[in-house]
Amino acid sequence: MQKNISDCNIGIAGLGLMGGAIAAALREKCGVTQQRLFACDRDNDSLNTAMQAGLTGKSFEASRAGEMLSLCDIVFLCLNPSSIPGFLEQWKDSFKRGCLITDIAGTKESIAAAAREFCKYRESASGGYDDNIDFIPGHPMAGAEKSGFSNSALCNFNGKNYILTPIAPNKPENIEFIKQLIYQMGFSRITQVTPAEHDRKIAFTSQLCHVIAAALIDCESDTEITRFGGGSFEDLTRIAMLNAPMWTELFIENRVSLMDRIDQFEKSLNDLKAMIGRSQAVELENRLALVKERRIRMSKR
Amino acid sequence: MQKNISDCNIGIAGLGLMGGAIAAALREKCGVTQQRLFACDRDNDSLNTAMQAGLTGKSFEASRAGEMLSLCDIVFLCLNPSSIPGFLEQWKDSFKRGCLITDIAGTKESIAAAAREFCKYRESASGGYDDNIDFIPGHPMAGAEKSGFSNSALCNFNGKNYILTPIAPNKPENIEFIKQLIYQMGFSRITQVTPAEHDRKIAFTSQLCHVIAAALIDCESDTEITRFGGGSFEDLTRIAMLNAPMWTELFIENRVSLMDRIDQFEKSLNDLKAMIGRSQAVELENRLALVKERRIRMSKR
Repeated sequence: MQKNISDCNIGIAGLGLMGGAIAAALREKCGVTQQRLFACDRDNDSLNTAMQAGLTGKSFEASRAGEMLSLCDIVFLCLNPSSIPGFLEQWKDSFKRGCLITDIAGTKESIAAAAREFCKYRESASGGYDDNIDFIPGHPMAGAEKSGFSNSALCNFNGKNYILTPIAPNKPENIEFIKQLIYQMGFSRITQVTPAEHDRKIAFTSQLCHVIAAALIDCESDTEITRFGGGSFEDLTRIAMLNAPMWTELFIENRVSLMDRIDQFEKSLNDLKAMIGRSQAVELENRLALVKERRIRMSKR
Repeated sequence: MQKNISDCNIGIAGLGLMGGAIAAALREKCGVTQQRLFACDRDNDSLNTAMQAGLTGKSFEASRAGEMLSLCDIVFLCLNPSSIPGFLEQWKDSFKRGCLITDIAGTKESIAAAAREFCKYRESASGGYDDNIDFIPGHPMAGAEKSGFSNSALCNFNGKNYILTPIAPNKPENIEFIKQLIYQMGFSRITQVTPAEHDRKIAFTSQLCHVIAAALIDCESDTEITRFGGGSFEDLTRIAMLNAPMWTELFIENRVSLMDRIDQFEKSLNDLKAMIGRSQAVELENRLALVKERRIRMSKR
């Protein structure tokens, strides 16, 4: 039976940039009341600010996450990717029966594995009755170059992409429910793929782009260089103002796909470099014309 | 003696993306009347559109550029970089005495060389009287990923950078005059450097960024990839929709500096790649933190 959002208590585990943005979207766009929205975080300032702003109705320190989980029909895990398996392990018995869990991590294979294990544990621990718990891994493609709850307003969900990577135990009605919620939050396109496919694609669109932006800044020490900027440099390097611990995790977690993508990028870069070095104008212009045409096709949905 | 803009006839040689944008800025922001603004181009449609829109008062086919030049006190050469030396050579006797010339090309060493030669020729050809002609090479950092006169409105000069690369013969009052005009057009910061310095800096902020964007698109054939885009990929590759012939020219013209910049970028990329491949989380996080801090410093003026 599909859940009804107005009957649900919703918990945000991790009230950072994305946790805060999701909380705001649930309140402003999905009709979730303050009384039914809870948050836990290790930063008490963020928790207090959210309460005072009328965003959340209850706050829980990190050490009391289990108390929150025991109340929630829906839980958004908005933690750093590497913290999620440990969080599930620590609080596996605290989640309410029938709870629907999702997460926001930028890598999905390891999360999906942890989710499968968690669902299996709950099934085996339920001693015969239907525990009915579910965990649908997801990835909202709507970050910002700044981090933390205080920057949540920088995340704009309107028109953005959301990836869901369902696992075998997921119930179709739960997938349907979470999709409706995602559209209500403002996202315009949901793509369903396997966790492995997600990680391969994201290695390109997200992680490779961040590595490139970082390398661009790494190779230029002149901080007055923006005098010579015309927009391209600024656009390509804005994401170099990244959350260093989180991106370190994402890069290393997804390193197999990411290394492949770096190799492919380097190959294309070297092709172009060779043509430039040899002044092969015709070949270079043809290749750039193909690139232009492909990028224009990519812009069209 | 400094020119007075309202007494000047102004010619735009090349009514493309930037020529059109400069024409519009001169009319809308600098008080230049339609009667005093002329254009020449090989595309008659652009010329006619500009006349009908009340932008320009006279139009000249490319073969009649000399007629326009003989009337102009100020000339903006808005041609592809490689066309400028030939244009100067072809029409060197047509420019009006005392004319102030500038250009918009994205490479400056070759333009500065052509400008020096042109000024020298005019001086030697003037037979003793003061020809008083001047050519101040420049580069407005305000392009767009689309090209052509019809896309001129995409160029927004407000708050943008402008580089001037004066040469020895330039008169201080002419440099002052052109700077005032540039600020009037909406640009917020003018940087004066040598042509060589310009080309080294621009190889990084502009050309390297375009090569990287092109390589990113070159290495991914899935045109549905934008389903997995969260903004980074879109921002990094928007400029891959480039004007292929013009960027081919710019890359090859400035290939010595550009190859250096590609090498430096590849070195940084390989450093990061090595850390990712070896899962060196501490080193990687430290390096990314330095990158973040440097990029933030670059944002501040």
